Amino acid sequence: MGKKMRTAIEPCRADDYPQWYQQVVRAGELAENSEVRGCMVIKPWGYTIWENIQRNLDAMFKETGHVNAYFPLFIPKSYFEKEAEHVEGFAKECAVVTHTRLEDDGKGGLKPGGKLTEELVVRPTSETIIGASFSKWVNSYRDLPLLINQWANVVRWELRTRMFLRTTEFLWQEGHTVHATEAEAMEETYKMLDVYAEFAEKCLALPVIKGQKSESEKFPGAVSTYSIEAMMQDRKALQAGTSHFLGQNFAKSSNIKFQNSEGVEEIAWTTSWGVSTRMIGALIMAHSDDNGLVLPPRVAPAQIVILPIIRKEEQRETVMEFVNKLAAELKSIWYYDKRLVVEVDKRDIAGGEKLWQWIKKGVPIRLEIGPRDIENNSVFMGRRDLEPNEKKGITVDEFVKNITSLLDDIQQNIYQKALDFRQQHTHVIDDKEKFYAFFTPENEENPEIHGGFVHSHWCGSAECEEKIKEDLKVTIRNIPLDAKEEKGECICCGNESDKRVIFAKAY
Amino acid sequence: MGKKMRTAIEPCRADDYPQWYQQVVRAGELAENSEVRGCMVIKPWGYTIWENIQRNLDAMFKETGHVNAYFPLFIPKSYFEKEAEHVEGFAKECAVVTHTRLEDDGKGGLKPGGKLTEELVVRPTSETIIGASFSKWVNSYRDLPLLINQWANVVRWELRTRMFLRTTEFLWQEGHTVHATEAEAMEETYKMLDVYAEFAEKCLALPVIKGQKSESEKFPGAVSTYSIEAMMQDRKALQAGTSHFLGQNFAKSSNIKFQNSEGVEEIAWTTSWGVSTRMIGALIMAHSDDNGLVLPPRVAPAQIVILPIIRKEEQRETVMEFVNKLAAELKSIWYYDKRLVVEVDKRDIAGGEKLWQWIKKGVPIRLEIGPRDIENNSVFMGRRDLEPNEKKGITVDEFVKNITSLLDDIQQNIYQKALDFRQQHTHVIDDKEKFYAFFTPENEENPEIHGGFVHSHWCGSAECEEKIKEDLKVTIRNIPLDAKEEKGECICCGNESDKRVIFAKAY
Repeated sequence: MGKKMRTAIEPCRADDYPQWYQQVVRAGELAENSEVRGCMVIKPWGYTIWENIQRNLDAMFKETGHVNAYFPLFIPKSYFEKEAEHVEGFAKECAVVTHTRLEDDGKGGLKPGGKLTEELVVRPTSETIIGASFSKWVNSYRDLPLLINQWANVVRWELRTRMFLRTTEFLWQEGHTVHATEAEAMEETYKMLDVYAEFAEKCLALPVIKGQKSESEKFPGAVSTYSIEAMMQDRKALQAGTSHFLGQNFAKSSNIKFQNSEGVEEIAWTTSWGVSTRMIGALIMAHSDDNGLVLPPRVAPAQIVILPIIRKEEQRETVMEFVNKLAAELKSIWYYDKRLVVEVDKRDIAGGEKLWQWIKKGVPIRLEIGPRDIENNSVFMGRRDLEPNEKKGITVDEFVKNITSLLDDIQQNIYQKALDFRQQHTHVIDDKEKFYAFFTPENEENPEIHGGFVHSHWCGSAECEEKIKEDLKVTIRNIPLDAKEEKGECICCGNESDKRVIFAKAY
Repeated sequence: MGKKMRTAIEPCRADDYPQWYQQVVRAGELAENSEVRGCMVIKPWGYTIWENIQRNLDAMFKETGHVNAYFPLFIPKSYFEKEAEHVEGFAKECAVVTHTRLEDDGKGGLKPGGKLTEELVVRPTSETIIGASFSKWVNSYRDLPLLINQWANVVRWELRTRMFLRTTEFLWQEGHTVHATEAEAMEETYKMLDVYAEFAEKCLALPVIKGQKSESEKFPGAVSTYSIEAMMQDRKALQAGTSHFLGQNFAKSSNIKFQNSEGVEEIAWTTSWGVSTRMIGALIMAHSDDNGLVLPPRVAPAQIVILPIIRKEEQRETVMEFVNKLAAELKSIWYYDKRLVVEVDKRDIAGGEKLWQWIKKGVPIRLEIGPRDIENNSVFMGRRDLEPNEKKGITVDEFVKNITSLLDDIQQNIYQKALDFRQQHTHVIDDKEKFYAFFTPENEENPEIHGGFVHSHWCGSAECEEKIKEDLKVTIRNIPLDAKEEKGECICCGNESDKRVIFAKAY
């Protein structure tokens, strides 16, 4: 075995990617598993990332005319029976409330009491319960479009869970809209996909591919589903957001009708779209390195951490005065959608330990400031997107003057790295043997990192899709919206195809 | 029967207060009942009030050093068995999850499947589940204080529900903190009570009384509970927020211990505090009138609505140009904690209907603008805190220049009205007979509106408290923090007392 640099996260990505992920989450103080199976605790550092995602997305939703509302957590069992595909898709993994109290079991413990006549399901998604309200709210074409969003928790009883990526309970937003025409509903479906893509790229520094899901991968009950797909550092795809054109399916089952301008009753057209705390998983997996989390400045809980270096007690006052003044100045500066957040770490622990904690937490800029720096009116700066030892001195004036462009530079650099990585691992393959070889791990000891995104032809049949999934655990991620018309042969059966789709292993 | 002015809300307050409340909620488009028993749908106008409450309170929490996090929705049954008073207080009214899927019942329907080995309770409050995390997070005195808040939904299986005031599911925030000493935990308990009081008074224009709850009314498991109490227009009290000093009770049951600076293990001290969507109920009941909702500007979803008056089609362009320009100018103005929100109602419906819709929705300022106003560069303004017909013309320049002080004036006026009302219905009573007479409805046909707040002596015994509750449905709201030491005789038993408490009927 060769010698390796010791890294802050062990194992490193190359050695054990899934374990590396768990360790980044732990060391970054983002979340932890709870004793409730499949439910995580989102710790303050992780939750602040979610708050930043919420604030940014919420502003984009409002700019596009949406308003927020809140609907019940519980859905009566009978609502599930209204839309056949929908119940098929969600009934198998849901939390069912059957009782309304706990009572003495006579053995010193508690047992459920107050049995419900109709069981309630904890929402796995809210199309049916929101549909019940919408059918009352929509009467005339004047009531349309109805553009509603909900920020909420949802529960899906997942068998295998992984923090942020797949948890029994997760936080999300779900948009639900009603339109008078098919064209308007389609426009909304695409518009929200664009909002997600723009948000992922600009705020999370996450390059994504917009496209349509295949029949087998679409949302249960939808006519068509569109997704944004991002590449993680193990070259797997992660679906980071979906937008569904529901046609008239849910409008029919929920009875959402309206009188058009001629007074004729019509069935409405609906959409739904959502992103969740899964986005935080995407953020971690796309950007972090063997020293832990790497956060794009626009979504980081803090952009800057200042570490005062105090070697002798008599230096404390001078250093702290300088540091506090600088922090106050930085905090007044507007960056992206709010003022800069600056942490000053005054804790009385070893400097190295402190420094590495902040590296593992992914803060974009670290400033170390000791008495000598103060004499020179300078700071010693480290960027999280560069190597930990690539630090440089810079005058305070220079630093403050250029802080927003410096942060934009970091943001852009993180985005570019992810984009380069994706391009490096994206291939066009037309040969079936090459396709199978590409998705077969070379290294048996570390089967996690291999493959990538492959643009190949697909005939459109569910059989070919299923065969590839069975043989290789590879799925069609989506059919890119910008895919060119191009004659070719299906990578699986050789039949005619007019478009390439993206194949990849996926989370 | 005498003649009465017709009002927008029927019945009016004096005729049927509970029904008036339901009608204000309905006409204001705040919320509606769902088909899920006890669960409401919070409509966009109502939810935006909640967003404004959240944004303001969240900023106050962060200013006082708290950070947000998120803990599981589900609490294992066994957690409930750890704190005896706590389970007693919550086990009787909770939603119990017993199964993890729905499956075919063989009769064309669905039945619960996948029975859990340990039932899960949907959180009615999170002391126990958060305690499980805190016991891991707290190890040393260096980890303290731990100051966490959670924004979440909670479920309590209430028998009698009323929108916003008491619902099975509701939205709230719950603060949970851990401290090294009793004194610090007490300081936190009082600090957050102050935060709630300041928020209620400054933002919701709701005068409140801070005080300690009696033993029988405190939070299950707490050492002491403090509340803010507000008077509604039926003279009943509404508890609008609570702050609990939990002593070491929950730290013991959750095993939250730390090493002090001498290396000795100690049990920590904890607090919890919360406000909920109930605050919206308080807001409605305190300020609204017989024409519907009256919203204080600082919490209103929109401060201003502009109603363009277009009598002939050829006027449209001129009017809309003027209106849009004015709206844009107003939207750029900073008010309280964000920029002004201005609605322009372009809908093609009758002007009177439009106007009254906005009155019922409680928007602080209405501007009617037609061609003649534009010629004079003026607007026709109505204030929601004044009578609907008290409108006046004012030049645009004057209006724009003074808008923030005008809104502050409305905010203050709404607060003052509520304060005057409370003072008018607050009495000092030392005679038992008078006390009983005061709380007995005079008018048998309308028993809702009577009584008020009464400052009377109380000996401190649970028996006297219980007797008054049984006889009159009157409870001790709290023991005001600013109550003077004063010798007197208990209003119930005549025994010695050294302090007055507040008695009232309550929600």
